[in-house]
Amino acid sequence: MKFDVLTLFPEMFNVFNYSIIGRAREQKIIEINVHNIRDFSTDKHKKVDDYPYGGGAGMVMQVEPIYNCVDYLIKLYGYKPHTILLTPRGKRYDQEDAKKLSNMKHIMLICGHYEGIDERIMPIVDFEYSIGDFVLTGGELASMVIIDSVARLVPGVLSTNISYEEESFYNGLLEYPQYTRPREFRGMKVPDVLLSGNHKEIEKWRRYQSLKITYLKRPDLLNKALLTKEDKKMLDEIKKELEEK
Amino acid sequence: MKFDVLTLFPEMFNVFNYSIIGRAREQKIIEINVHNIRDFSTDKHKKVDDYPYGGGAGMVMQVEPIYNCVDYLIKLYGYKPHTILLTPRGKRYDQEDAKKLSNMKHIMLICGHYEGIDERIMPIVDFEYSIGDFVLTGGELASMVIIDSVARLVPGVLSTNISYEEESFYNGLLEYPQYTRPREFRGMKVPDVLLSGNHKEIEKWRRYQSLKITYLKRPDLLNKALLTKEDKKMLDEIKKELEEK
Repeated sequence: MKFDVLTLFPEMFNVFNYSIIGRAREQKIIEINVHNIRDFSTDKHKKVDDYPYGGGAGMVMQVEPIYNCVDYLIKLYGYKPHTILLTPRGKRYDQEDAKKLSNMKHIMLICGHYEGIDERIMPIVDFEYSIGDFVLTGGELASMVIIDSVARLVPGVLSTNISYEEESFYNGLLEYPQYTRPREFRGMKVPDVLLSGNHKEIEKWRRYQSLKITYLKRPDLLNKALLTKEDKKMLDEIKKELEEK
Repeated sequence: MKFDVLTLFPEMFNVFNYSIIGRAREQKIIEINVHNIRDFSTDKHKKVDDYPYGGGAGMVMQVEPIYNCVDYLIKLYGYKPHTILLTPRGKRYDQEDAKKLSNMKHIMLICGHYEGIDERIMPIVDFEYSIGDFVLTGGELASMVIIDSVARLVPGVLSTNISYEEESFYNGLLEYPQYTRPREFRGMKVPDVLLSGNHKEIEKWRRYQSLKITYLKRPDLLNKALLTKEDKKMLDEIKKELEEK
């Protein structure tokens, strides 16, 4: 899968030279190409922003260098990749979007900066996303979040297919607590059941914990999750357990 | 303001050598210290993860190196900074949290990786945050989002105080469209009102656009926003305008 990023801060994307995504890039499973919008400015000082018409604080990114960059990429690839703009007014990005995007072969992400981008960017944008209700200094981190969450769903990026299927938001519940060596650390012990070797009991304990954590921390997820008869019985037990406390 | 980050991928945080945050670091307005958890492993192979007790796919981060790193920082600073764990089960992070954290002098962020961290991390965690309902390869990008959104609220980080006060989620509405040079680009013109020099009209147009975009894209924000009588009148006009289409 291919990602093309348009940004004023290409060096920031070195973040993807490391860890799981770095390895997937080395193995050519995914490709991340980062383009400096400034390189496409026709201004002699390589200017990419200017004061907003109508006044106001801050600078606005000009559309011309961005269109020039997109034109260049269309010529290079022979088509226009699905184009995403990161903006506070975009759809709230979630795991369903990550799954949808991971089925595309090629996406292009445009990162705004300063007080935003000239509105005339919109004709080249296919979709607007926001990663949450907070203000960032630019679209770079939001782009990275999208690339990371999408790339890890591309087959071969994670070492096992099991890994991501077991994770939160994949089965609709939060994850159960995990424990690893040592068995005892500063007086804190690993729950006995996990050392029992009884897989059925372990499975049951984990499901119970997963339901309990979800009920306590994100009850809204329970409405959307596919719960079995046993799950519902467990939930009743959990509620009773918590009431007794 | 100080940030300390505990991670297995310290190089990723070079992202903060650039742009607004990079400048604020140079000017010593903020300080970001990144610690490699692996340096605090007492294992001869510098191991930091191990198989989960009870079985399952993937590896779990061990608590010992993290506790060692935290102990080191407590000794260094003479106190334990407010400690944040990035995890899918955390509170959904938003601009209110950014504001709250920006009033703290020092925060410490712990980034999980692989299938999570041994649950016995919890006694050193003061607060759990999630940046959204999507799965990332680690807590690094989530930490960066928190640092970026908090740091930009620290006085002196943005060049003007006006900048951030005008932005989305600050006044509770999405931003109005911005335009900058040129006046006409590929047949698309800047709205006349912005060139009029009539500040009252510009202000009115911008508020109208801001309300309209919020109504269309994020109507949920209107319930929380502080709307004036004029705003409510404008909203009625907007609804009528949209119905007529």
